[in-house]
This record gives sequence, structure tokens and C-alpha cells, in this order.
Amino acid sequence: MTRAHTSPPSAARTPCGTLREAHVGQDVTLKGWVNRRRDLGGLVFFDLRDRSGLVQVVVEPGSGAFGTAERLRSEFVVEVTGRVRARPEGQRSDRLQTGAVEVVARGVTVLSEAKTPPFLVDGSVDAGEVSEELRLKYRYLDLRRPEALRPLLVRHKVIKAIWDFLDAEGFVQVETPLLTLSTPEGARDFVVPSRTQPGSFYALPQSPQLFKQLLMMAGVERYFQIARCFRDEDLRADRQPDFTQLDLEMSFVTQDELLDLNERLMRAVAKAALGIDLTLPFTRLTYEDAMNRFGSDKPDVRFALELQDLSETFAETDFRGFRGVLEAGGRVKALPLTAEHAAELSRKRLGELEAHAKTHGAKGMAWLRREGDGFAGPIAKFLSAAETAELAAHAPETGDLLLIVADAWRVACEALGAVRARLGHELGLIPGGTYRFLWVVDFPLLERDDETGGYTYMHHPFTRPREEDLPLLETDPGRVRAWAYDLVLNGFEVGGGSLRIYDQATQLKMFAALGISEREARERFGFFVDALAYGAPPHGGVAWGLDRLVMLFAGAQSLRDVIAFPKNQRGGDPLTGAPAPLSAAQLAELSLSVTAADGTTAEARGGGGA
Amino acid sequence: MTRAHTSPPSAARTPCGTLREAHVGQDVTLKGWVNRRRDLGGLVFFDLRDRSGLVQVVVEPGSGAFGTAERLRSEFVVEVTGRVRARPEGQRSDRLQTGAVEVVARGVTVLSEAKTPPFLVDGSVDAGEVSEELRLKYRYLDLRRPEALRPLLVRHKVIKAIWDFLDAEGFVQVETPLLTLSTPEGARDFVVPSRTQPGSFYALPQSPQLFKQLLMMAGVERYFQIARCFRDEDLRADRQPDFTQLDLEMSFVTQDELLDLNERLMRAVAKAALGIDLTLPFTRLTYEDAMNRFGSDKPDVRFALELQDLSETFAETDFRGFRGVLEAGGRVKALPLTAEHAAELSRKRLGELEAHAKTHGAKGMAWLRREGDGFAGPIAKFLSAAETAELAAHAPETGDLLLIVADAWRVACEALGAVRARLGHELGLIPGGTYRFLWVVDFPLLERDDETGGYTYMHHPFTRPREEDLPLLETDPGRVRAWAYDLVLNGFEVGGGSLRIYDQATQLKMFAALGISEREARERFGFFVDALAYGAPPHGGVAWGLDRLVMLFAGAQSLRDVIAFPKNQRGGDPLTGAPAPLSAAQLAELSLSVTAADGTTAEARGGGGA
Repeated sequence: MTRAHTSPPSAARTPCGTLREAHVGQDVTLKGWVNRRRDLGGLVFFDLRDRSGLVQVVVEPGSGAFGTAERLRSEFVVEVTGRVRARPEGQRSDRLQTGAVEVVARGVTVLSEAKTPPFLVDGSVDAGEVSEELRLKYRYLDLRRPEALRPLLVRHKVIKAIWDFLDAEGFVQVETPLLTLSTPEGARDFVVPSRTQPGSFYALPQSPQLFKQLLMMAGVERYFQIARCFRDEDLRADRQPDFTQLDLEMSFVTQDELLDLNERLMRAVAKAALGIDLTLPFTRLTYEDAMNRFGSDKPDVRFALELQDLSETFAETDFRGFRGVLEAGGRVKALPLTAEHAAELSRKRLGELEAHAKTHGAKGMAWLRREGDGFAGPIAKFLSAAETAELAAHAPETGDLLLIVADAWRVACEALGAVRARLGHELGLIPGGTYRFLWVVDFPLLERDDETGGYTYMHHPFTRPREEDLPLLETDPGRVRAWAYDLVLNGFEVGGGSLRIYDQATQLKMFAALGISEREARERFGFFVDALAYGAPPHGGVAWGLDRLVMLFAGAQSLRDVIAFPKNQRGGDPLTGAPAPLSAAQLAELSLSVTAADGTTAEARGGGGA
Repeated sequence: MTRAHTSPPSAARTPCGTLREAHVGQDVTLKGWVNRRRDLGGLVFFDLRDRSGLVQVVVEPGSGAFGTAERLRSEFVVEVTGRVRARPEGQRSDRLQTGAVEVVARGVTVLSEAKTPPFLVDGSVDAGEVSEELRLKYRYLDLRRPEALRPLLVRHKVIKAIWDFLDAEGFVQVETPLLTLSTPEGARDFVVPSRTQPGSFYALPQSPQLFKQLLMMAGVERYFQIARCFRDEDLRADRQPDFTQLDLEMSFVTQDELLDLNERLMRAVAKAALGIDLTLPFTRLTYEDAMNRFGSDKPDVRFALELQDLSETFAETDFRGFRGVLEAGGRVKALPLTAEHAAELSRKRLGELEAHAKTHGAKGMAWLRREGDGFAGPIAKFLSAAETAELAAHAPETGDLLLIVADAWRVACEALGAVRARLGHELGLIPGGTYRFLWVVDFPLLERDDETGGYTYMHHPFTRPREEDLPLLETDPGRVRAWAYDLVLNGFEVGGGSLRIYDQATQLKMFAALGISEREARERFGFFVDALAYGAPPHGGVAWGLDRLVMLFAGAQSLRDVIAFPKNQRGGDPLTGAPAPLSAAQLAELSLSVTAADGTTAEARGGGGA
């Protein structure tokens, strides 16, 4: 009979980055990676790196560790025993937090050797000099750079703070299914073939929307989840096929209570992750105000530049371009710039800004520059005396500039909003290290689909219309406002949500407004429509884009920087090589065959049925 | 310009289940579901239910709320305002925690009506009387039963405790990819077709095994994740196609340190979820001891019944059945039962137990019953005097029984272990409310595959062999012990893990022992084999089966009871109807077609390429 084997305990280990002058004279055991070795004046020096940071190790020629130290190379994993001593005055380093001390090694043991890595991770090379594809292929090396690991640590702190806050507020974390039915977010689903039911597929969830609403109907009352979500969309620079959201839902709650809870949650998160104190409540802007003032439904309010509406001024204009727009119900919007900022805008740059406005839908962008009592610029000649006088209030000083777009209201706002955002960056108007949260509320429930002429939802088909606007749903759907809100940080949407419809009749009316018949609704969401008939509580919720939030908190440049093993912009994983072809046997087991790009059907290669 | 709409705050709400005599005289607002209405003596009574529990509401005929109250039906969602009063002495209820009080309603508002539910959830019908398929189809109703919701609350507490403990211990939660490459756990993968790379598929992870090891190589040092995992296996009663594990990995750690950390974690979890104090350290049994003594590598040690080894006793036996087994290297194992227990076992039940042993691989099960100085039973006539004398020590009293299996060591152990487990239940030997954890350690690294005659891993191909056994890997692989351990609770494996191989040469030797050539290894796990060459720290970890653990903690009968929206035993979701067929357009977009069961290829129905 054998005795249970007891492995020897490892010697107590000191984290490299924690050593300070207070430790001088102490014997320590360190374990980590050789960051870089330098041989100097007969001694061997190397920086040892672990998750906590770096410390300098010195090995003297007389030491028994010297032979081992001499053959150390970058990224070897070693155990070092030795004594902490103060560095001589002139040799202190400000580069390291441990720069006042070094460890004189008594023993050095190689735990693991390392080949020369494909790129240096010792801080001597800027990550930007290495192609991202290479860094992702060797992500396990890339993450050894403290700057690369930091966003993952911020992410951990954010999620921990979420758990702590919501647990204390009585929220229950519930995991919702990942193998489920197509959900109605409107993007393309990733699907998973069922082996046992040939021809049937699960869908990976685009969000837990229906399940969290069902949990409210189940009486969970307060739910949250750090939820993995999947959308098979065409990838932009700033998207991943799978992403993470904080998903949250509450019963018996008003919009104000939901916003208040989210604000307090965000304050706790910002405190834990960044150590900053956010001021509550956050500013609340209506969708209409946000568009009118900032030309965006996710305005960056870190700088003050605001749009003006000149429609009244130009009500009687002789300029046909503006008059036509106004007569068609459009607006004349302007972005006023002070002479100081305007001075930086050459004709060439104005041309670039107009091009930028055009990519956001405007047909053109005019400009007027204050000169003496009047204005210069291509359309100055159309100005009447009265118009000039009114405009002067918007551009009081010589050199002040008005950038003007006349178009349908939303186009005029968004085009100038895009110009505003660009100028914010280019004119250096954005203060660093500032976190400006705000809510955008009172969104329209529906918006017109320019292609079909029908209506589509702005948030999703489960958003509750404002009660007083309900009659409009059948007569003038575009005017119905929603109990919907977005949370905006520094010009990025970091969250969004709504109160939900909680009765079957309104839900079916909403589907009808979207052009979905009751029959189709029952086919696609029958189980959900049914559920509404068995006593659904009033409820609402929110989802935060966690990747985006962590990106902003960590000061990272890309969503890929806040994900441990991200996909590249083609949806591939350079590390593992995913996705990859299946074997013929696997395909046969799934009762699938791959059709060629030209639409013909390839034969199932190889045997074995399911 | 509109002002941001401010919805009125909801009146402060009191949770129903919290009302006690101390609240008598207070005005309260309650919101919840009508559990059941009773009209009695001209009054309307109903129990109002929310997540916190139930309270009785009474509506008097004079009250303005009476008309509304009269039309309330089960599962209506209502808001009640009223005053708490003590119930008269004789009308107090022990059934409810709020049974000393009731709320006299001043106002009742219907927030949501409800159709008659397909089954009652008011506690009057036992869940067992409703088919599980129906309960899953209406899971949002099923979860309104407090007993059904409870496992989800336990689950929340377990996960919160895990976060708190591991965060304090310096662990970093990292999310690993869900769209990835086939992983080597050996089960079948669920796959996800790539739309943009026709013929290529992602795999859903069977576990984050390789990624967590890569995180160690990345220097994360301490990682955890509440990880969703996927295995497309044939479903048994107690399996789900997707499941949740606590996944954990540490660098620079010994087995003892890992076990110790896990024990302290489990103590924190048991305290938070159950309020119980576990005694540390847990018992540690070698695999060999666990098999020899309990006939199982996940023994239930809540009861004492232990196996004996009678091989020495029968070394010279005349009984050919035993002698053949012993000569072939097998063992004669016995499970001794006291006369008291044996008295419950009729011939018929002994036959059933033998059949049970046979389903666990035994060719038969003999028995010997002590009678006076000798033994009765089918093989008693073969016993020599010396054998009888030795056996008497194992069955000292008249009526004592020996159940005997002679077979290959593992078969003999496991067959009697199965009989032991069954008798533990049938003889009522298992105390209720007891949580007996133990570790099984010193597993063999490999086991022989009876079909192929080759070796296969007992844990997975990344498990580190014991250093002193390394030379055996090439000469006698079956004798190599592993740095592997399982965590067992009440006869269930709730966790398992190992120290990992952290050098490329040993990893390739391990693959070779498994019959995987270096070329094949590089094809399948090339990125991982490569990573081992760049400085991998010694590391190890564990995974807990979270669903199973919560099931045991919550006293639930099935994994389905601890999952909010589980699949049925055919892998389907009775609620949503998943999985479901795709449209022809979706299939075409994925460049897939479904082949018929007979192997022929169906045409891609309908148009539109990717």
C-alpha cells in the first residue's frame, strides 16, 4: 500500500517588483523570466521579471551561481536566491520601481530554457515596431510586456467591481444558454450544427436579451451576467466576432432608477479600476439635444464646441441651396469656430473637412469667415443685411468661422458632428485623462429605413414605447419616443438599454409597426410572445460593452488590446490558426458538405454516417 | 428644445418575504405575483410572492381595492399598498416565514394579467407531478417555484465566493476564446462554420486547457475563469452539451500548494453557499488506496464499508475459478457485511447485486455467509480449513457476509465498488447533510486502451509525469505515476487537475507514449509545442465541475436543476425549440449543404452565395 505522495513545499517566493530599500539585508527567493543579461566589469547583471515587475540581479565571479549566470539568455525562466542590497548612489535607476536595490545572487537555477524569441519583449523595442500579426501569433510572448498585460488586469478589476457592487444590490448572476435559437438583434448569427438532428443548428447568442427578459418573468427580479456574445458581421478595425457585455435586467423599476443604479455601478467600477471619483449624476441629454448641439447620439463633451441652428436666420434667404433644403423641411446647421481655431484651417484643410462631412452624408459644406462687419466665403454674396447682422452674433470677432451644412435635420447634424469630432482631435481640444460620462435619453422608438421606406427599431423590438406616444404607433410611428437610453463615455457608446414591453398586445403592435405579422412573430419568437401572457412584470435593463469600456479605461488603442487572445481583422486567430477545415469524417458525422464558391455541391468526401 | 424626460421614481418597495411582527403598523408597498386567491367570509385573501418569499394580503369589502381584488387570478402581477398587522392568534401560519403578519390592502393595482398557467406554481402541486419536458418548455413559470429558483441562488453565491477568494489571492480572471481550434480533450467538438472562409470551422472549446497554459507562459502566474465548455458527446441523464467549470492555473507551484489553495477556496465557498465550516486539510488517498479500499477513484467515504483483499488467503486455493485469476495476475477482493446488514439481503437481492457487479465488468460475484465455525454459500465447499480460519477474521459473527469478486485488479475493485455504492444507499448507510471531501492523488499517467492495446492518458496529454518515473515512459508506460489529483465530494468527482509538462522534450515523449508522432503533434498542437520552447514556467492547475458542485450543494437531483435554461436529454431546448433548421439562404451563405441520412448530398436549396 502506497502513502499519498507529499511534494516538498516550494520556498517562499518574493515578487520581484515589490523589493524596496526596506528589504535591504533580507534573503529572498525570486522566480521569473530573464528580461536581459549584461556582462559588465567581470560581473553578470540581469533584470528578472515576473507579473509584479522587474528587479536587477547581480552575480559576482566568486559566487557558485556564476557559471549558470553566464549562460543565461533572454526569457530563460530561473529561480534566484540571494540577498537584497542597496545600489550604490550613482547606479540607482528611476526606470524601475525597484531601482534603489539589487539582489546579489547566491544561487541561480534554470527552470526552463528559451529559444531566441521572434521579437524582444524586454522593453527595448516598441510594440508598434512589431507587426500585430506576429504579436498575435506569439501572443504568449507579447503579453510578457507589462504594457500588454495591463489592460487584462484593468479588465479583471472592472469585472470584480461589477460583481461586488451588483451582489450587494441583490443582483443574481445567471448564465444563459450559449447553444440556443437565433435571437432578434438583427445581425447575422454564428451557428452550430447538431450532429444528432441532421440539418438542425443551434445559434450562438447575439445577446442574452430574450433570456434575461424571461428571467424577469421567472421572478429573478435582478439579474446580471458578464455575457459572451457573438455576431457574424463584417469585421471593422474595431470589432471582434465574439465580445463581452455586462448584461443586466431589473423588474419593477423606472428609467430613473435604472440610470441611477448604473451610475453608482460605474462610479464603483471607475474607483476600483482607475482610482478616480466620478461625480454623479451624469449629465442627461435627450437624443434631440445631443444631435442638435453635438451632431451625435454619442457626443464627446470633453470639449465645448457646439453646433448652432441657423434655419431661422435663413428663413427668407435668396440662396437657393439653403432655401430648397428649408422648404423640404430640412435645417441649416452651423459649427462656429473662434478666430484662433479658424486660423489653423487653410483652404486645403477646409476642403478636407468638407470631404469628411460628405462621407457622413452631407451634399456639401459651406463656410463664412467674419471680416470686419461682414463675411467672406463662397456664399457670402448671397447674404442680406439682416442675415449678416444675425450671423454676426454667432461669429462676433474678425476671423471667426462658421462651417455650415444645410440638409435633412439628421444629416446636417451628423455631418457637422463628424467635423466637430475631427476638429476636437486635430485642434487639440480634448484634455487627456478625462472621463466624461453622459446619458442620451428619449430616443425615437423607430427610424425609417431609407432602403425599404419601412420602419426599423433604433434599439430592438422589445423596447417599450413611451405610454403617451402609444397612439402614434399606428398613425405616425416615427414620432413615438422610447424608454431607451445610451451611456456615452468620451464620444463612445459604452452602454445602452431600455425599459421593455411587458404585455403581449403592445409587443404584437410593435412587431406590426416593424412589418412583422403576428404569424411571423409567433414563428420566430413564439415562446417569448407566449411568455408575455403569463404575468410579466414591468422590467428594463442595460448592456455595457465591456471590451470598449476597458479599452477606454486602459488607454488602449484597439479592442484587440483588451482581449487575451483576440481575432485579427479577418476573424482568424493567428496563434492557433482557427478557423480550420474539418476532416471528411467530421463533416459526414454532421451530415454536412461544403459547397464550392461557384454554388456547386462538393461530394461528401469519405465515409461514416452520423 | 426638449428637456430630458424624468420618469417619476417608484414608491419604495418592501420585499414580501421580509415582513415580520416588527413591521406591524407600517405602511408598505409590495409588488409581486398572486400566488393564490381565496375568498373567505366576505374577504379576499391572497398570498403575494416575490423573490424574497410570500406574504398574505387581505382585502376588506369596504376597501377601494376590493373590486380589483375580486378579479385577481393566479400569477397576476400586482402592486399592493397597505398596512401590516398581526394575524389573530389562531390564524398564524408556520408555513410562511411571514406567517405572523398580513397586509391589509388599501390599494391593489394590476400591473400585468396572466392566463391560467399550464401547471400550478403556487406550491400546491409537487414539481414531480409535472413532466420535466413541460416544466422546461415553461421554464420561466417553473422558476417561480422557490425550490426551483434556489439552486440558481446557491450558484450565484458559489461563484461570488470564488471571485472574492481568488481575487484576494492574486488571481486574474481572463476570458479565453470561445471560437477557437479543436482542443485535445478527446471528446467530440461542436463546430461553427466560418462564413468568410468557406469550408473552415471554428471549434467551441472543450475546456480552456491550452489557453490557460499559454497564459502561464505569458507570465499571468495566477489565472482563473468561470468557463463555459462544450462537448458533443452522447448525452446521459447527467450531462449537458455545454457546461461550466471553474478553471484555474498557477505558475511556480507544487502539488501541495495547489491542493492547499483549493481546499481553502472550497472552505470559503462552502461557508458562503451553505454556511458550513469544512475541516482542513481534506483526506488524501492515493489512487491505489482508493481503489483497494473503496473500489472507486471517487469514493463516497460518508460510510465506512471497505473492501478487503483475499488474494493471500486464496493463494493455494483448490477453487479453480479463483486460482486461474490469481495465476493470471488478478486479485480476489471481498466486501464484508455485518450480519445486521446481511440479513437484509435475500437470495434475490444477492442475485441483483451480482448482476450489478457484472454490469461493472465482473464475470461473477461469489458470496460466503458465516455459519458457526464455517461458511455457507455456493463456493463454501472449496474452502480448506486454513482458508476458513483466515476468512473467519473478515466475518467474525454468524450471519456476516463476504461478497467476493476475483478478477483483474481494477475490475475486481470497481465491480465491488459499484456494489458498495449501491449498498450504501440501499442499506441507508449515508448520513444526510454531510459533505465529505477528499483528494485522490498519484494517478497513473496512462492507462491501457483495451480496444487498441495502446496507451491513453488518464487526465490529458499535458499532465506531468512524476520525475522519478520518467525513465519508465519509454520502457513501461503503465507504471508511470502522474502529478494528477481529483477532488471528490460524496462519491462525485467535483474537480480534477494536474501539474503540467513544461518542456518541449517531455511533451513530445508524452505524445510518443500516446502513439502521437512528433509530426502529428506539430500538426494538431504546433502552436502549443512551439510555445514550450520560449521559457515556460513550471505550472499546474485544476478545474471544478461547477454544475455538479452546485447540484450537490443545493441538494438538487439533476444538473438540469442548477442551470437556468437547460437542454433536455436529447440536447434540445424545449423552451426555444433549439436546434432548428436554417433557411436555404443561410446555408448558402455558409457554403454548406445538408447531406441526407443515407449519405447522398442534397442540393443547396435556393440562391445567394456568400
